[in-house]
Amino acid sequence: MKRPQEHRNRALYPGSFDPITYGHIDIIKRARRVFPELIVGVVANPRKQTLFTLEERRELTEKALQEEGILDVRVITYDGLLIECAKELGVQAIIRGLRANSDFEYEFQMALTNRDLDSGIESVFLMTSGEYVFLSSSMVKEISRYGGDVSHFVPRVVEEALRRKFQR
Amino acid sequence: MKRPQEHRNRALYPGSFDPITYGHIDIIKRARRVFPELIVGVVANPRKQTLFTLEERRELTEKALQEEGILDVRVITYDGLLIECAKELGVQAIIRGLRANSDFEYEFQMALTNRDLDSGIESVFLMTSGEYVFLSSSMVKEISRYGGDVSHFVPRVVEEALRRKFQR
Amino acid sequence: MKRPQEHRNRALYPGSFDPITYGHIDIIKRARRVFPELIVGVVANPRKQTLFTLEERRELTEKALQEEGILDVRVITYDGLLIECAKELGVQAIIRGLRANSDFEYEFQMALTNRDLDSGIESVFLMTSGEYVFLSSSMVKEISRYGGDVSHFVPRVVEEALRRKFQR
Amino acid sequence: MKRPQEHRNRALYPGSFDPITYGHIDIIKRARRVFPELIVGVVANPRKQTLFTLEERRELTEKALQEEGILDVRVITYDGLLIECAKELGVQAIIRGLRANSDFEYEFQMALTNRDLDSGIESVFLMTSGEYVFLSSSMVKEISRYGGDVSHFVPRVVEEALRRKFQR
Amino acid sequence: MKRPQEHRNRALYPGSFDPITYGHIDIIKRARRVFPELIVGVVANPRKQTLFTLEERRELTEKALQEEGILDVRVITYDGLLIECAKELGVQAIIRGLRANSDFEYEFQMALTNRDLDSGIESVFLMTSGEYVFLSSSMVKEISRYGGDVSHFVPRVVEEALRRKFQR
Amino acid sequence: MKRPQEHRNRALYPGSFDPITYGHIDIIKRARRVFPELIVGVVANPRKQTLFTLEERRELTEKALQEEGILDVRVITYDGLLIECAKELGVQAIIRGLRANSDFEYEFQMALTNRDLDSGIESVFLMTSGEYVFLSSSMVKEISRYGGDVSHFVPRVVEEALRRKFQR
Repeated sequence: MKRPQEHRNRALYPGSFDPITYGHIDIIKRARRVFPELIVGVVANPRKQTLFTLEERRELTEKALQEEGILDVRVITYDGLLIECAKELGVQAIIRGLRANSDFEYEFQMALTNRDLDSGIESVFLMTSGEYVFLSSSMVKEISRYGGDVSHFVPRVVEEALRRKFQR
Repeated sequence: MKRPQEHRNRALYPGSFDPITYGHIDIIKRARRVFPELIVGVVANPRKQTLFTLEERRELTEKALQEEGILDVRVITYDGLLIECAKELGVQAIIRGLRANSDFEYEFQMALTNRDLDSGIESVFLMTSGEYVFLSSSMVKEISRYGGDVSHFVPRVVEEALRRKFQR
Repeated sequence: MKRPQEHRNRALYPGSFDPITYGHIDIIKRARRVFPELIVGVVANPRKQTLFTLEERRELTEKALQEEGILDVRVITYDGLLIECAKELGVQAIIRGLRANSDFEYEFQMALTNRDLDSGIESVFLMTSGEYVFLSSSMVKEISRYGGDVSHFVPRVVEEALRRKFQR
Repeated sequence: MKRPQEHRNRALYPGSFDPITYGHIDIIKRARRVFPELIVGVVANPRKQTLFTLEERRELTEKALQEEGILDVRVITYDGLLIECAKELGVQAIIRGLRANSDFEYEFQMALTNRDLDSGIESVFLMTSGEYVFLSSSMVKEISRYGGDVSHFVPRVVEEALRRKFQR
Repeated sequence: MKRPQEHRNRALYPGSFDPITYGHIDIIKRARRVFPELIVGVVANPRKQTLFTLEERRELTEKALQEEGILDVRVITYDGLLIECAKELGVQAIIRGLRANSDFEYEFQMALTNRDLDSGIESVFLMTSGEYVFLSSSMVKEISRYGGDVSHFVPRVVEEALRRKFQR
Repeated sequence: MKRPQEHRNRALYPGSFDPITYGHIDIIKRARRVFPELIVGVVANPRKQTLFTLEERRELTEKALQEEGILDVRVITYDGLLIECAKELGVQAIIRGLRANSDFEYEFQMALTNRDLDSGIESVFLMTSGEYVFLSSSMVKEISRYGGDVSHFVPRVVEEALRRKFQR
């Protein structure tokens, strides 16, 4: 199979980012220490229905990174198989954040399957910071839906988007 | 933040109770040994769609407790964030039943999030009895749906409600 | 309770088979070494919505077994409680495949519940081969949906059915 | 490799049995329903130091089975690799009891390794009864060491041996 | 069985405390909110060999609590079965701290066994704060042994005791 | 704190390597794709007693890498705290291999502790190949001790060293 020139240490961090949280941002900061070039990939159609549209998720991710002063990370969207997206971008690693152990089997399954589909792209797992180890987008949405305070969990731009979404 | 006077050892046991099982009742009995005043909170809108309406779930819980001779436990319903409900009731602890390890991360996440939202209310975990360690409301519904015998798993009033619900 | 004569070493391997994968086939091959008579039971209404209809799942399972040269295993469909199906067939064991540890609690719960409903039928767990330990029908569907190659994961007849289903 | 004639449905249940508990006996009873011929194998040198000698463990296992009225199960001792012992006995399955999920990886590892060493012998997992799902020989020894009552956990002959061992 | 008058809401927090860490202290603070009277029980002979003697562990625990300003918690030592100690003290609950999920089965086993030995004493699990969720005494000892800085993990009195123990 | 110039993408893969297996070698191959410069660090005093001496473990690791044609990976030994060794080498990442989920908490604990001790060094987790996901040095030693065939699990030089060690 033809593929673009591989860039050593170009990495892709995929996810649904519905919405992006400080947990994701923590992984992005860590990944940038290891990989000079990092691309964030917002998936068009995740397994679960999303609260925000694809375009909203991309835009919130971009603005949140700006708010955090992270200016050299590209945000893209992709549709279809993660591994195909990774090949087209010529990345050599796929970044996954490890939180507690719940979706461990899914991660193993994904990593082994992706390896089976293209053995040249490595799955690289980074560990979330202790304070974010149990943080998830769904928890943030659940709290925000009922008017709870999520300012410890997401950047301000996301907090406001959640507030608008839940019409308060 | 203003809040009602806290009652030491008033506790809230929240859940969807769709329907209440002997597993829940076991936790309620244990919680009463530790907490002089116990309130059972039936949540209006759980993450999963329910078989019984909110009012049915509240009523079944109340009747099941009566059938079991538990007369000093209040059953309420609540909408919105658990932690807000807990604050309004002035409770000092939220009771959670531990079964096997499946929803462990969710429990951790909830407890840490609730603590973040109000550090004055403690999450307290009690362990279900060995015979109920794998019992769940969904299993009971699945068995009942196809005419299986659930009399070992739920009080008689719940058994009958399930039978009516599945029109047999 | 009356029941048909029990056949020592007649076993039932139940599942949704949506669709059958090499992981299932591996378990079937192993189960046949231990149980002279093996029946594969395709459940009519699994907990999750299926991609293939019941009839398609039964037919694909049958054809896949033929493609693999497994000719002495009966494929049936059943509706309702697994344990009732097992009793009617007069089997003495229910086969479950163990992959990684994700649905362990569900398996425990099922096995204990089935035992409670009929203590004469044993749940027997077999371990998938190392290469299939993370393989699942959902992963196969996700890959196939976006045009990925699933020929390492499913027999040819299933691969083609997936391709037709996703209209390519 | 030469090996004795294989006996379909002859199974080996290996362990350190230091000492045998009602949990082990429960698995033995279940295994006998599935396998007409069952052999209990007491390993000479388990990973952990034992309280009872090999001969004591074998004898206690035999007497406990007699006390329970299980008269058609042979008890042997073996030294060295489990899989070699299994081959010499001509068994076709190795029985393992599943309790909660703690030694799951070890079981997987053992089963895959044994398969690698001899693909003709299947590892078969049976589930302990609910009441024994957390019972272990070490817990029994810990309780007995300090004079606690272990009569719910082990047959009388084992209870007495524990008492003598701890010189009371 | 005769026993001293039970004190509602007197609780025992047992452990080896080899040495006490901020994780233990966090649990002690939480337990005191729920239980008016809390006793810390240092076990004489834990399953693993200890670095500090029983007397050192008791003394360090006491001094650490003083350093933290916790003055109304009694520290005792006990030998033998936890449940016997609990009965003699007339407590009604045994406190256990939940960290990540590693010793979950052991906790279940202990709690069910203790319940079997005395059904009147409840096991109550509290969740460690996020920052301590992966902290353990063994990790602290490993770091301290090689001269690492443990001041984020233990009170000053413990830090100094570790330094003296490792002769630096 | 002063430290040597950091080399972006110099990584350290620490372990006891008692002895090195194909599982370790698989991780080394993967790590080299992501990190241009990789150092293997054999720890002098692991938590468990070793079969091979430190010098034997270092030498076997070196020879095994040569046998596998991996010539640009340096093998060192270190004593004391991993994080100190990492700082002295000026590495920016510590590599850990993920197998099944058993030592997950330990990994989390290590990673968070190391981060606490030096936030500039990232823990990076790579996933072992499917066939090695349950392989461990202890399993290899157990099999070899009793004369089992370990040629699928370790390079030839290690196989021979094991044979000599167990005097056959």
